[in-house]
Amino acid sequence: MTQKLVFRFEEGSKDDRARLGGKGANLAEMTKVGLPVPPGFTVSAQTCNIYNSLGQKFPDGLEDAIWQEVQALEQRLGKRFGDEENPLLVSVRSGAAVSMPGMMDTILNLGLNPKTTEALGRRAGRRFALDCHRRFIQMFGNVVLHMEHSAFEMILSAVREHAGVEHDHQLGEGDLEQVIARYLELVQRQTGRPFPEEPREQLMLAVRAVFDSWENPRAKVYRKINQIPDDLGTAVNVQAMVFGNLSPNSGTGVLFTRNPNTGEKVLYGEYLTQAQGEDVVAGIRTPKPIAVLGEDIPAAYADVERVADLLEKHYGDMQDIEFTIEDGKLYLLQTRSGKRSARAAVKVAVDLAHEGRIDKAEAIRRVTPEQIDQLLHRGVDPKAANEVLAKGLPASPGAATGRITFDADSAEELGRMGERVILVRPETAPDDIHGIVLAQGVLTSRGGMTCHAAIVARGMGKPCIVGCESLRIDLMRKEMQVAGRTLKEDDVISIDGATGRVFLGAVGMVEPQLGGETAELLRWADEIRRLGVMANADTPEDAERARSFGAGGVGLCRTEHMFMAQDRLPVVQEMILADTEEDRRAALGKLLPMQEGDFYGILKAMQGLPVTIRLLDPPLHEFLPDVEELAVDIAVMRARDEQGSEEYRRKSDLLRKARALSEFNPMLGFRGCRLGLIYPEIYEMQARAVYQATARLLGEGVDARPEVMIPLVGDPKELEITRRLVVQVHDEVQRETGRELPLKVGTMLEIPRACLLAYDIAEHADFFSFGTNDLTQTTFGFSRDDAEAKFLTRYLEDKVLPENPFAVLDQNGVGQLVELGVARGRSRKPELKVGICGEHGGEPQSIAFCHRAGLNYVSCSPYRVPIARLSAARAALED
Amino acid sequence: MTQKLVFRFEEGSKDDRARLGGKGANLAEMTKVGLPVPPGFTVSAQTCNIYNSLGQKFPDGLEDAIWQEVQALEQRLGKRFGDEENPLLVSVRSGAAVSMPGMMDTILNLGLNPKTTEALGRRAGRRFALDCHRRFIQMFGNVVLHMEHSAFEMILSAVREHAGVEHDHQLGEGDLEQVIARYLELVQRQTGRPFPEEPREQLMLAVRAVFDSWENPRAKVYRKINQIPDDLGTAVNVQAMVFGNLSPNSGTGVLFTRNPNTGEKVLYGEYLTQAQGEDVVAGIRTPKPIAVLGEDIPAAYADVERVADLLEKHYGDMQDIEFTIEDGKLYLLQTRSGKRSARAAVKVAVDLAHEGRIDKAEAIRRVTPEQIDQLLHRGVDPKAANEVLAKGLPASPGAATGRITFDADSAEELGRMGERVILVRPETAPDDIHGIVLAQGVLTSRGGMTCHAAIVARGMGKPCIVGCESLRIDLMRKEMQVAGRTLKEDDVISIDGATGRVFLGAVGMVEPQLGGETAELLRWADEIRRLGVMANADTPEDAERARSFGAGGVGLCRTEHMFMAQDRLPVVQEMILADTEEDRRAALGKLLPMQEGDFYGILKAMQGLPVTIRLLDPPLHEFLPDVEELAVDIAVMRARDEQGSEEYRRKSDLLRKARALSEFNPMLGFRGCRLGLIYPEIYEMQARAVYQATARLLGEGVDARPEVMIPLVGDPKELEITRRLVVQVHDEVQRETGRELPLKVGTMLEIPRACLLAYDIAEHADFFSFGTNDLTQTTFGFSRDDAEAKFLTRYLEDKVLPENPFAVLDQNGVGQLVELGVARGRSRKPELKVGICGEHGGEPQSIAFCHRAGLNYVSCSPYRVPIARLSAARAALED
Repeated sequence: MTQKLVFRFEEGSKDDRARLGGKGANLAEMTKVGLPVPPGFTVSAQTCNIYNSLGQKFPDGLEDAIWQEVQALEQRLGKRFGDEENPLLVSVRSGAAVSMPGMMDTILNLGLNPKTTEALGRRAGRRFALDCHRRFIQMFGNVVLHMEHSAFEMILSAVREHAGVEHDHQLGEGDLEQVIARYLELVQRQTGRPFPEEPREQLMLAVRAVFDSWENPRAKVYRKINQIPDDLGTAVNVQAMVFGNLSPNSGTGVLFTRNPNTGEKVLYGEYLTQAQGEDVVAGIRTPKPIAVLGEDIPAAYADVERVADLLEKHYGDMQDIEFTIEDGKLYLLQTRSGKRSARAAVKVAVDLAHEGRIDKAEAIRRVTPEQIDQLLHRGVDPKAANEVLAKGLPASPGAATGRITFDADSAEELGRMGERVILVRPETAPDDIHGIVLAQGVLTSRGGMTCHAAIVARGMGKPCIVGCESLRIDLMRKEMQVAGRTLKEDDVISIDGATGRVFLGAVGMVEPQLGGETAELLRWADEIRRLGVMANADTPEDAERARSFGAGGVGLCRTEHMFMAQDRLPVVQEMILADTEEDRRAALGKLLPMQEGDFYGILKAMQGLPVTIRLLDPPLHEFLPDVEELAVDIAVMRARDEQGSEEYRRKSDLLRKARALSEFNPMLGFRGCRLGLIYPEIYEMQARAVYQATARLLGEGVDARPEVMIPLVGDPKELEITRRLVVQVHDEVQRETGRELPLKVGTMLEIPRACLLAYDIAEHADFFSFGTNDLTQTTFGFSRDDAEAKFLTRYLEDKVLPENPFAVLDQNGVGQLVELGVARGRSRKPELKVGICGEHGGEPQSIAFCHRAGLNYVSCSPYRVPIARLSAARAALED
Repeated sequence: MTQKLVFRFEEGSKDDRARLGGKGANLAEMTKVGLPVPPGFTVSAQTCNIYNSLGQKFPDGLEDAIWQEVQALEQRLGKRFGDEENPLLVSVRSGAAVSMPGMMDTILNLGLNPKTTEALGRRAGRRFALDCHRRFIQMFGNVVLHMEHSAFEMILSAVREHAGVEHDHQLGEGDLEQVIARYLELVQRQTGRPFPEEPREQLMLAVRAVFDSWENPRAKVYRKINQIPDDLGTAVNVQAMVFGNLSPNSGTGVLFTRNPNTGEKVLYGEYLTQAQGEDVVAGIRTPKPIAVLGEDIPAAYADVERVADLLEKHYGDMQDIEFTIEDGKLYLLQTRSGKRSARAAVKVAVDLAHEGRIDKAEAIRRVTPEQIDQLLHRGVDPKAANEVLAKGLPASPGAATGRITFDADSAEELGRMGERVILVRPETAPDDIHGIVLAQGVLTSRGGMTCHAAIVARGMGKPCIVGCESLRIDLMRKEMQVAGRTLKEDDVISIDGATGRVFLGAVGMVEPQLGGETAELLRWADEIRRLGVMANADTPEDAERARSFGAGGVGLCRTEHMFMAQDRLPVVQEMILADTEEDRRAALGKLLPMQEGDFYGILKAMQGLPVTIRLLDPPLHEFLPDVEELAVDIAVMRARDEQGSEEYRRKSDLLRKARALSEFNPMLGFRGCRLGLIYPEIYEMQARAVYQATARLLGEGVDARPEVMIPLVGDPKELEITRRLVVQVHDEVQRETGRELPLKVGTMLEIPRACLLAYDIAEHADFFSFGTNDLTQTTFGFSRDDAEAKFLTRYLEDKVLPENPFAVLDQNGVGQLVELGVARGRSRKPELKVGICGEHGGEPQSIAFCHRAGLNYVSCSPYRVPIARLSAARAALED
């Protein structure tokens, strides 16, 4: 045997996770530090690999090595395996470097057999000893001998019935003796051999069982999904038992060194006197708060306080500790970083930094972007118990309660009247925006994470669930079927956009926490990050919110939402339906003052910071009624012989024009700068609105900084022409107003060809902004409106793709184009400002990519600005 | 003066086009070879540039240099400018390196004034001299003095009326004297100065006018459109006049050294005795066939024959020659490569090669792919005069006549009855195929060059015009409005798919010519080309046709067209509407024998050659009725209270399912291998059909070589999984039949991500085929069904893009991805076979790109196979 397979706790440290597993490494670390840990040893994770490579056989010398350590334990503790006076009992626990489900449970009290049970009974009470023995057989039978749990439970239940009691702890010593006898019989019958009474054999079988559990199907699947290597292996921890139930001066408990919900610096946990580990969680006796230990066993409590502080200092983090007190003496059974709420994570990290235990960088590493995300939205109170009606895709976090409304107009009407409504639709379209604005939240039965409803809701920071396929919505009847119920308009539901759950009725809510520590942490993040964080904002309100969340400007101001407003849509339609440029210009003339007002407000709200205004992007038919609806109306009128009516003529007219504009693939159609090239008067009006608003603001002493962005450019020529148009309007307004106006014109890189031709496109651009939503659609050939519902969900389930590329930027494919675009653009213009303004701008992994790719900024929805600030700092720290 | 500006004909050669222009270079060449060319000189094209750069001024020394050459001419000919006995007359002609419209017309007889006219009259007859003088003033007044042509015509007309004659040549000497007098008066009145009588002044003004015409607006626009540099400049040719009308032994004519329509090796042309250049084309006298010259002036004819042969040998090509015979002596006024029909181009090239005048490579260079294309389709007889009703996009060449039919079912029905019909639709859809098959041609009012109708028609080699927007089709009334007419079903029209013209009634046709020379030329091309040429073929008939056209296999066999057949559609719909995998498998079970039959036929037709079978690609909703039509039907039935009917239920059911499958952007939706991944049973059935057919054929001794192609792969995983499925079925069928079956599985690279990830995709592929139609759509973000009608046409008009990227592969953008895909794929698998199967596979420029990019083959529609063979050879020659 050339490799050391078994390590005494004294031989390791917390850095030995790969060899000793997480649990083993922490036990070793505490032992090394001199903390009171019951002695024991760890069989290394590598041994597990050797065991498997030998076809489930112990390598030579392993059993001897284990036995040698047992003997060392016996010597040290003055106890012996199988001893009839003072028997050595041990616990056997698995412990891999990464914890995973399906691994073997703990076996406590190994070493018990009829004789040692009597010995234990003499020291700790006979009923307790018998119960331990009964549990040990059951636990061992189940996890080591692979017997069905239910077979044991049937015996237990029969004995309970016979004894006329309801609960196990009401069984007397005689009952337990009977249980044990029948357990042993069962083992003999099912395994064909007697229960192993020899502690050495018990131990070796238990070690073997831990190894075997590494190959159990659940663990294998989990490793596959989480890409955990199969040759990591699991370690086995063998530790002397200590007894928290040995005397009134004994106990056992768990504690956090700080409050894991709030982060407050107080010991938090519970314990039981005269109890063993299991009892604390079994719910038979009610554990007491840890503070009470100070009254019950003051010396032990002082030890606990001291040890907690020491461990926190040692690990530099809040700890989750398991301990046992045997006859007044404290023993530590485990310590690890404590799981905590988002709120606690922030507070603990900031507090630890203030206490000098970690530095600011480490504080930032300690808080995940997801935790910041949770803090920014109200959620459903996890303690509230409500009926979950359905589960959809969690499209936009936050929770909301309201009456069901099935159309945007009612949502708007009720919303204006102060009603709280949830807009429920099969899907939403741009002309539902006025309803979404006034709804508390949105629920759709169709669509994926980046469908219209999802994007709009996320942009507005409104809770949203999409693709909730178990809803059967009947818009005609204004009702929906779900979970065997029929819900009608005005019925109350609640939705939790963070989890995708739909609840019946109103539920308790937890309000968002954005306390002082969060703000402080984000300020530290700002000091560290090198990536700018801008916001996508279409209104002055959005812009103000973004600013309050720390945005360094507006990275994407979409002008189409302004066109959708109810009072403008008729004018927009007039513009679209115009047959001549003259008529179109007349309609645009009416829109000009409105657009100027829009830009005035946003530029003012963002004064001193850049506002990137994207000229009109969506296909024009999005502003017209649906072709199918019109066709149906007309056919019905014809069937009713109403061809003579004014309405019929109007609708026929509208249909003809809507049809002429309708497209097979609008995503790839007549939109973006293609509109601006065919109808330059539209972009001209928008540019004029931008620069007139700017001139007005400058006149009022407001530092307005517009940057004009041309969408969907795929050829340098497109940008050259549209840029020329914008510059011309800029110069005109400059002449007209006599004011020097800032001039920055850039473009979005959102189709592959733009990235490939970035050299020449850069010639005409002051900045690039990657529109990674569309770039993902075109690079993958995925329509985001269709893919998720039709096949992408299955792709993710089947691991055809590792992530939803609309949520997490696809670094393999789309990322190549981004890198190409950056490199080619900068090769022509080294100082080119480059950002990203797709949904990915607010997603942590994608932000890290943007940092590495050398982008200047990310832009995301206002509510994700804090997340992006943190993510950018974390990415900088990873460098 | 450092630069020589004026060149005597003796000083140049045919290689001096850039300096002397095309005409000047050929005059110099003929002079050099010793042919009888009237002497003269050329003012260089560079002089024109200097003239322009000086702000329309003669450079120093130019006038002297010209005059020097005139004096040399005088000396040589014994004539003098302005001489009252034997005056020198010259012609002045423009001549750039590239001929272009808008350039100055020829001026003949320069040097005439009242005195020299009398002198000429004494030598050639007074009436003729007067007419020449009259014409000279008119010509000079118009092109040099910029006077309106109509002003001269009014005078001429008044004199004719006064003289009581109808035609100019009926005017007597007195009448002409009067015309001349009034012309001179008109010049004086309009220009404020007398007509320049001094020959030197006339010459200098004429040279200046040639230079000025370079900057004329028509010429400038033409240069811009054709990307001809503005600083090319035009040369000026000054040449002594010879007189074809000097005696009965004189004449003038034009000839081709071979028949320019058929290519036959006989002199072809016409001439007039006793006539000057103008008269041959003026139409007053009917010219005689050139052969008659042999009877009229035998010696001159012998000279013509000798010179024609000499020039053809010298230039190695068929020549288009202008000549004049003065008193029995032959003079050559111009020679150039003769324009010829496609048919003649092929015959002349092959004949010249056989005659040893050029080699095979040169013969291939001499024929353009467009000429081969013309040979493969019947066309409208260019001599036929028919009313052109409208003009659309020339989507598929060939001409057809037939009765108008507005729906596919009638087209099919009438077609089966032997009627010739033209299917006229706003647009076509996959379920119109059965009608297209039986129609003579297709005409649509919507769509672009690559819309459904265009692609299907091109694939079938059927004439097709799309996007013919001036048609107003009323499907309800079964009529259309066009050019002020109303055409009803059964009215006869003709279409010319090569030009996009729609004619009223039946028109004369020219049948396709694919003679022995074409076949021979293409065999030579095959010897030279290194790029394989395969065909896109979906039926055994297509495959046979492709084979007869020289295809080296099938590069793309689309299986969806098989699903569309009328007898299968119901089974396909059954499969789509199935709720369970079991039901789906039942329907697929019915399709299996049909598919097996399809593959059996194609593999047999292509025996010994590879057949690349693409598994199902289009979105499933393409096989269902249109959602809008269904919605309309249902609404109408509801309005009529027919909800109780069976039909209503059936349609409602169908609508619900069609709606569930409908997509916002089907191009980017649930199609291609995505179908195969979600419904593996579909691909499984197809693979089984392929291999069962192969096994049967091998059993019959037929060398079947299927290659299975997975469409729309964007991630290596997609190919890995679908390939595994195909291999599994292959192995099963191999086991079941006991036959060794060929196994090749490849993929299409048709979305950008596939090209970017070609490294890893190659791991699972035996071959790549670039689907450049879809790759163009995704790389540009252009939907081909929408782009052309909505904005692409304008883009091309406005030169935003130089070419339609769906017609000519976009080498800048899409080409980068192709090159990347090839390089990355081969870096992992050096022997990877790579081809292309988009529409571009049959387009010459794109084929040249494929050759350069190192592809192994192109695949195109059967009718374009000969074009591709030639193009591939030409590309190889360009290397």
